Amino acid sequence: MTQPRRAAAAPIPDTEVPAPSEMPSPGRMEAFSDGVFAIIITLLVLDLRVPRLTALHGTLGAALLDQWPTYVAFTLSFLQVGVVWSNHHTMFHYIFRTDHKLLAYNLLLLMAVAVLPFTTAVLSEYIRGDDAQRRLAAQIYSGALMAVGVAFNAIWQHPLNAHLVHPHSDQHRLYALRRHWLLIPVLYAAAFALAFVNVYVSVTMYIVLLLYYALPGPFVLRRVTAWQARKELAA
Amino acid sequence: MTQPRRAAAAPIPDTEVPAPSEMPSPGRMEAFSDGVFAIIITLLVLDLRVPRLTALHGTLGAALLDQWPTYVAFTLSFLQVGVVWSNHHTMFHYIFRTDHKLLAYNLLLLMAVAVLPFTTAVLSEYIRGDDAQRRLAAQIYSGALMAVGVAFNAIWQHPLNAHLVHPHSDQHRLYALRRHWLLIPVLYAAAFALAFVNVYVSVTMYIVLLLYYALPGPFVLRRVTAWQARKELAA
Amino acid sequence: MTQPRRAAAAPIPDTEVPAPSEMPSPGRMEAFSDGVFAIIITLLVLDLRVPRLTALHGTLGAALLDQWPTYVAFTLSFLQVGVVWSNHHTMFHYIFRTDHKLLAYNLLLLMAVAVLPFTTAVLSEYIRGDDAQRRLAAQIYSGALMAVGVAFNAIWQHPLNAHLVHPHSDQHRLYALRRHWLLIPVLYAAAFALAFVNVYVSVTMYIVLLLYYALPGPFVLRRVTAWQARKELAA
Amino acid sequence: MTQPRRAAAAPIPDTEVPAPSEMPSPGRMEAFSDGVFAIIITLLVLDLRVPRLTALHGTLGAALLDQWPTYVAFTLSFLQVGVVWSNHHTMFHYIFRTDHKLLAYNLLLLMAVAVLPFTTAVLSEYIRGDDAQRRLAAQIYSGALMAVGVAFNAIWQHPLNAHLVHPHSDQHRLYALRRHWLLIPVLYAAAFALAFVNVYVSVTMYIVLLLYYALPGPFVLRRVTAWQARKELAA
Repeated sequence: MTQPRRAAAAPIPDTEVPAPSEMPSPGRMEAFSDGVFAIIITLLVLDLRVPRLTALHGTLGAALLDQWPTYVAFTLSFLQVGVVWSNHHTMFHYIFRTDHKLLAYNLLLLMAVAVLPFTTAVLSEYIRGDDAQRRLAAQIYSGALMAVGVAFNAIWQHPLNAHLVHPHSDQHRLYALRRHWLLIPVLYAAAFALAFVNVYVSVTMYIVLLLYYALPGPFVLRRVTAWQARKELAA
Repeated sequence: MTQPRRAAAAPIPDTEVPAPSEMPSPGRMEAFSDGVFAIIITLLVLDLRVPRLTALHGTLGAALLDQWPTYVAFTLSFLQVGVVWSNHHTMFHYIFRTDHKLLAYNLLLLMAVAVLPFTTAVLSEYIRGDDAQRRLAAQIYSGALMAVGVAFNAIWQHPLNAHLVHPHSDQHRLYALRRHWLLIPVLYAAAFALAFVNVYVSVTMYIVLLLYYALPGPFVLRRVTAWQARKELAA
Repeated sequence: MTQPRRAAAAPIPDTEVPAPSEMPSPGRMEAFSDGVFAIIITLLVLDLRVPRLTALHGTLGAALLDQWPTYVAFTLSFLQVGVVWSNHHTMFHYIFRTDHKLLAYNLLLLMAVAVLPFTTAVLSEYIRGDDAQRRLAAQIYSGALMAVGVAFNAIWQHPLNAHLVHPHSDQHRLYALRRHWLLIPVLYAAAFALAFVNVYVSVTMYIVLLLYYALPGPFVLRRVTAWQARKELAA
Repeated sequence: MTQPRRAAAAPIPDTEVPAPSEMPSPGRMEAFSDGVFAIIITLLVLDLRVPRLTALHGTLGAALLDQWPTYVAFTLSFLQVGVVWSNHHTMFHYIFRTDHKLLAYNLLLLMAVAVLPFTTAVLSEYIRGDDAQRRLAAQIYSGALMAVGVAFNAIWQHPLNAHLVHPHSDQHRLYALRRHWLLIPVLYAAAFALAFVNVYVSVTMYIVLLLYYALPGPFVLRRVTAWQARKELAA
């Protein structure tokens, strides 16, 4: 009548396990986000299609080159999502407790990120279109990144207010990061508006912003501080 | 003749490693579930299609707006799966040992969740259809969420019975959560039945339930308790 | 001239970190496998297609019912991959060190598992076909699961030989599991052969084996042992 | 008026939690990479298509055999990505701190790996083509693996320079691995060049290199060292 497996489930001693905190560590939120990011970043690989040998008109090289907007879209989208992931990684490095609000904001961020491959593909297809198409494509692209930026700031502002960051974090860095990320929605709103004037200004901004946010943390700020420190030392 | 790599595999001292428990921690179950959730939540992004420039009739704006049921389906499905994930996250916060039954129930939950993007897409396509189509779509949608609800309750009831929850968990909260989740299949069964009367009542219920289960834990219960406590303090 | 970030990278004190073992823990192998399993298990969801409202002939119900082989394939494939995952989970519960061979065997397992959605879909499509089609479909299905079984046994035999299992594991259970898993390729080879005689015998075996391997560990063995123990106690 | 949840968020005691390091452990980078690898390795499974029963011309066997380039592409791509993952696993076994540069190099590696299923499918389709097609397909294949190799070396060179490897790692092994991986881009560059002379030489190289890098670490080097040790012992 003995059931060894059930027996093992007897209540374990009181001292062994602490009560679960009401504010769990962000481990599982990071794991879920990483899964979503991993899928989104590879999404446009699905658009790389091998032309069938039997259906080929002209050379293979020409057929492959003909798909160039797909390659551009894949590369841009991969880099753009990669940069968002890398900033998400920086952000959660300082967060060590979560609550329900943080979880909700993070889901909204993931939803905004999920449309980036789509908006990137629209832009890379219609940059070859007429003026109106080009402008609309740029504004859709700006809009998605504005939404990403707003969600980013919601995520980051909340832990600062609700004491969810590591208690020993460098406060200067936390607020430098806030300024750093606060600029994202502002700058993409500017790119949105500038698309009415000249789409190529907006596109240039996308590339500059992609590269800037690929740099570690508040890069410029860090360099300015270091330069001031050197100047003071020299004086 | 020496094989340094094999040597490292010699039996390690007895005291170093404890015997593996028959009831492992749910770490890997969570990781696998997170992977499945991550895929399911992004599934409808695949339906966002860029209209080809050369195949475009009319403006780009019109072509994109024409896809609106796809956008509605993506948004609803993302939020619905996100809410399920968030409740799964709450649930497993209290579970710290697993057994085979829990694993089986969890697989059934994941299978039910996996069809949510499909049932959501059916609903958002046929809400524009005739009465019979609209009703069937709503009932399919209700049915999938009833299945999700049943699996949720199977998962949660089992650890309560089999001592798989953290031994120091707040018992009141565990049972408040049980009541909270017990309502899911009941309410979606009601939505199923009401679709015979008026589909829009069911659809309103979906939105209310989506928002309600997006709130942390037993939100209303918590508020009622807090309100009673305040009243008692005032008396 | 100061660069605080680079300074942090100075060599850390000797005592803090142990040298990396040549046989890492299987953590990352499990994480990678979980990712692959999560994708494979959801693969056939992609085949659930919403019939377009404007292209609908007849009722929505009829159009959806018409897709029934897709639903069967999805359900079977989900359960089959779920059962493989659950056995993989049991297996790696006892493995606590890895080497290169284990990693290679695990990759081969994942490759065999990756074709299960395909072979399941072939079977559920051609079970309605003629005799020759039905037989071939069953043999392809058996073949894939034979490959899964062979890989499973390679994975499990190796840690037993090379001391990669937890040193305090219950030896009886380890060898009971070996017998349990040794039967997989044998039984699917039998199902392969029986398909020449009668396909429905093979299909019945698939269902029985699916259910049997869904049970925890060597279920029958455990029950026999418990029954013997009870009989001895009664005597 | 009491809000128990908010109260729990009060600053926790100073001594409990250490300040977050500026150089986090690579845990999340590995998790994200594993997700991306898991998707890429299963990508070509999507190309395995079940011929519809009603659309079948000739036998099922013939229809399935007709898809053989798809099977070859899937198998090759799975093995190729699996070998890259396994080397990534070896590499990160020795890395225990990360910085922003490592993260960027890793993203570039993942981008190069993401195109491997595509370049493999091109090769397995056009190996049946004419001379020019075959050569181009081989050069695209070589090019993608050269890019993978370059990213691999960037990832590995950086931690060696910037003290991000485990401080107690065997230095000989670290530098043996460097030589091991330094050969990847060189050998694939050779395969690229040789495709001008004879494509089949390049294809032979792909198979040899796939097998060689499937072996653990610097396999040949290890064997040579062991052989020398044995010779010295014998002398």
